[in-house]
Amino acid sequence: MMPRLIHLPLIVLLLGPSSLAAPPAADAVVSPEVHADRRATFRLYAPKASEVTLFGDWMPLNSNQPMTKDDQGVWSFTVGPLSPGISIYTFTIDGMTIADPVNPRIKLRWRTSASLIDIPGDPKDPPLWQPQNVPHGKVEQLFLTSRVLSGETRSAWVYTPPNYSHDQPSTKRYPVLYLLHGHNDTAAGWTTVGGANFILDNLLAAGKATPMIVVMPYGHAVPYTAPRDEQARNSQLVEQYVIDELMPAIDREYRTTPDRDHRAIAGYSMGGGHALQIALHHPDLFSALAPLSSAIPPDFQKLVTDGDAQQFNTHFPLFYIGCGQSDPFYPRWQKLHETMETRGIHHTFHPREGAHVFAVWRSDLCDLLPLLFRG
Amino acid sequence: MMPRLIHLPLIVLLLGPSSLAAPPAADAVVSPEVHADRRATFRLYAPKASEVTLFGDWMPLNSNQPMTKDDQGVWSFTVGPLSPGISIYTFTIDGMTIADPVNPRIKLRWRTSASLIDIPGDPKDPPLWQPQNVPHGKVEQLFLTSRVLSGETRSAWVYTPPNYSHDQPSTKRYPVLYLLHGHNDTAAGWTTVGGANFILDNLLAAGKATPMIVVMPYGHAVPYTAPRDEQARNSQLVEQYVIDELMPAIDREYRTTPDRDHRAIAGYSMGGGHALQIALHHPDLFSALAPLSSAIPPDFQKLVTDGDAQQFNTHFPLFYIGCGQSDPFYPRWQKLHETMETRGIHHTFHPREGAHVFAVWRSDLCDLLPLLFRG
Repeated sequence: MMPRLIHLPLIVLLLGPSSLAAPPAADAVVSPEVHADRRATFRLYAPKASEVTLFGDWMPLNSNQPMTKDDQGVWSFTVGPLSPGISIYTFTIDGMTIADPVNPRIKLRWRTSASLIDIPGDPKDPPLWQPQNVPHGKVEQLFLTSRVLSGETRSAWVYTPPNYSHDQPSTKRYPVLYLLHGHNDTAAGWTTVGGANFILDNLLAAGKATPMIVVMPYGHAVPYTAPRDEQARNSQLVEQYVIDELMPAIDREYRTTPDRDHRAIAGYSMGGGHALQIALHHPDLFSALAPLSSAIPPDFQKLVTDGDAQQFNTHFPLFYIGCGQSDPFYPRWQKLHETMETRGIHHTFHPREGAHVFAVWRSDLCDLLPLLFRG
Repeated sequence: MMPRLIHLPLIVLLLGPSSLAAPPAADAVVSPEVHADRRATFRLYAPKASEVTLFGDWMPLNSNQPMTKDDQGVWSFTVGPLSPGISIYTFTIDGMTIADPVNPRIKLRWRTSASLIDIPGDPKDPPLWQPQNVPHGKVEQLFLTSRVLSGETRSAWVYTPPNYSHDQPSTKRYPVLYLLHGHNDTAAGWTTVGGANFILDNLLAAGKATPMIVVMPYGHAVPYTAPRDEQARNSQLVEQYVIDELMPAIDREYRTTPDRDHRAIAGYSMGGGHALQIALHHPDLFSALAPLSSAIPPDFQKLVTDGDAQQFNTHFPLFYIGCGQSDPFYPRWQKLHETMETRGIHHTFHPREGAHVFAVWRSDLCDLLPLLFRG
C-alpha cells in the first residue's frame, strides 16, 4: 500500500488559502462533466446568485442558457451532444461574466477569462487536433526583450517539428509559418484551443505536410488598459515588432530557410488583418497568405478594388481565405471573393459551416497546412 | 495616421460573444491597477452581489478584505504598498471564490483558478525574478504520450539556457534540475509565478550559476475528479512517470549528462514530498535534493528517525531545505532539522520570513540555483 504524502488537514491548506472557507458543496463541484454520449453538464456553486446562465461558443450569440439551482446552492445545466473539439464557455452571474471557477483548463485571453471543454472524438477515427501516439513536436516560449515594445520581455510560442533537435546533419533547414491570433486571445491560443501542434504532428505522421516551424507571437502591442486612440496603433506596432525584431530572432534562433519562398503568414480575426497588412507591406518576405474569418484592413480593401492583380498573384502564389458562413465577417468576404474573381486576383475561398469560433479555424488549419511549402 | 483594422461594432464581437450583454461599467473596469508607490487597486463589476472580499497570498490566512461597491456596481479595494514580486489573489462573492474576470494574467491551477498581480521592483536594483535585458533561455513544452498515465499526452515544461541551440560543438552537455510543483498548481507554475526562467537567465548573466536544463513536469497523475483513494496513488504514479518515462525522454531529447552527479531534484509543498520520495527511492539517479516548504513523506520521516545517516550523506552531498517561518509545515521541519543535526544527517536549513507562498519559493530558488552543479 502506498503511503499518503499529504496529511488530510493539510490538503485544504494546499488547495489554496481561500478554500479554507469554502463549504463542502463548493469543494464537491465537478464542472464540466463530459458524458459518454458527448453531452456535458456544467455546474457552479453560487448559493446567493439570483440568475446564472451558460454561454458556449457552440451556441448562437445572445442565446445564454439559464441554469437551475439545487438545494445546495449548485447551479447546473446539461447540453449536447456536442461536436468533438475544444470549445470555450463562460458563466454569467447576475450580469457578471466569469470563467468556470473549478475547471483547470483556462482560455488565456487579452482581457476576461474563459474556460475550455474538450469533447473527445471517435477513438477509431480521431480528429486531427486530438493528440495521438505519434512523434510530437515541441512548443517553445522564445523570450525577447523588445525595443519596439518599450523594453518589455515577452514570449512568442514556437512549434518545432518532431526530431528538429536530432537532425543529422544539424544544418537541415525548415520553412516557417507565422500564425497570428484574434483580438481576445494570446500567444497560447493556437495551441491550447486550436490544437495547432497536434494537427501538425498528426499531418506529419501521415506524410501529409512538410515539416515546418510555426511561430505564434502575441498580437497585442499595447495593454488592454490603454486608451482607445493608443489601441488604434496596435496593428502598426505589431507589424514593426514582427518584422524588425521577431523575424530576425527566429532566423537567428532556429534553423530556418530565411527567404520568401519558405515563409507563410496566416491568422484569424484581428490576426488575419495583421497577416494581410504585414504581407502586403512586405511581399519580399512572404509567399503564402491565409486570412481566416479575418478583419479587413483598408490596404487590402484597396488592393481588391483597384490594386495590381498581376503583381499580387506573383507575390502570393498561395492565397487561402477561410470564413464561417454564419460569421459576421462572412458577407464582406463573400463580396470580396466575387470582386477578386472578377479582377483576376488568384485565391482559394473556403467557406464552411460555423460562426466566429475556433472550431472553424482548427478546420481551416487542417486544410491549410498540407498546402504550404510543397513546391 | 494609422488606419484602424477593426470596425468599432466588431470590437464587441471580437471581445467574445458574452460581452455583448455587458454594460459599460463592466467593460471599463481595470483590475488590478498597480500604482507608482506599489499600492494596488482591485476592482470587480458585480452589481447584485451582497458581499465581495479580496484574498491575496501576501495576507494572513482567513483575513479576506471586504471590498466596497460604488453606484455603478463596481467593488474596489486598495492595498499596499506591496513587496515586489508576483502574487496570487482571488475574489470571493457571496461565498463563491473566483479569479479576477478581467485580469489576463491567470494562475493555472489543478482546480480553481486565481489571478496574478506583478509588482515591479526598483528598476535600479531589480529582483532576480524580473526579466532584464540579458540573454534569455527558452521554456519548452515537451509532449509525451504516456503509458503510465493511460495513454494521456501531456507536456513537461523545460527550460534550456541561452545559446543551448547554438553551442559549437553541439555535443556540449548540461546538468538537469527536476523542479516539481505543489498541490494546486501545474507545470506552468514555476515559470509563470515562480519566475524560474528569469532567475536563471539573470544568475547566468552574472556568472553566478552553472548553465543547466530545468525540467518542470505536471505533478498530478490522477484528475481532480477522481475519488480520494485514487488520489492517494498520485505520488506513486508521479514517481513512475518521472523515472520510467520523463527522465529517459529528457536524456533522449536534450543534451544532458545522464548521471547522478549531474541531476538534482527539488520541489515545493506536495512537489517537495515527491522530490524526497523519488530521491530516496533512486539515490543512484540524483546527487542533490531540495525540499521547499515541503510535505513530509513517511520514507523520509523514517530515514531521519532511524535511517543510515552516513549512506544518506554519501548519496546527497547537497541537501537544501527551505521553509517559511509562518508556514504550517515549519514546526515539523524545525524539529526534523534538529533531529538531523543530532543524527549527523548533513543538510542546510534555510528558514526565512514568509508563509506557504511563492514569494518564499522564489527566494529559495535564488539561493539554491547557485549551489547546484558547482563541483
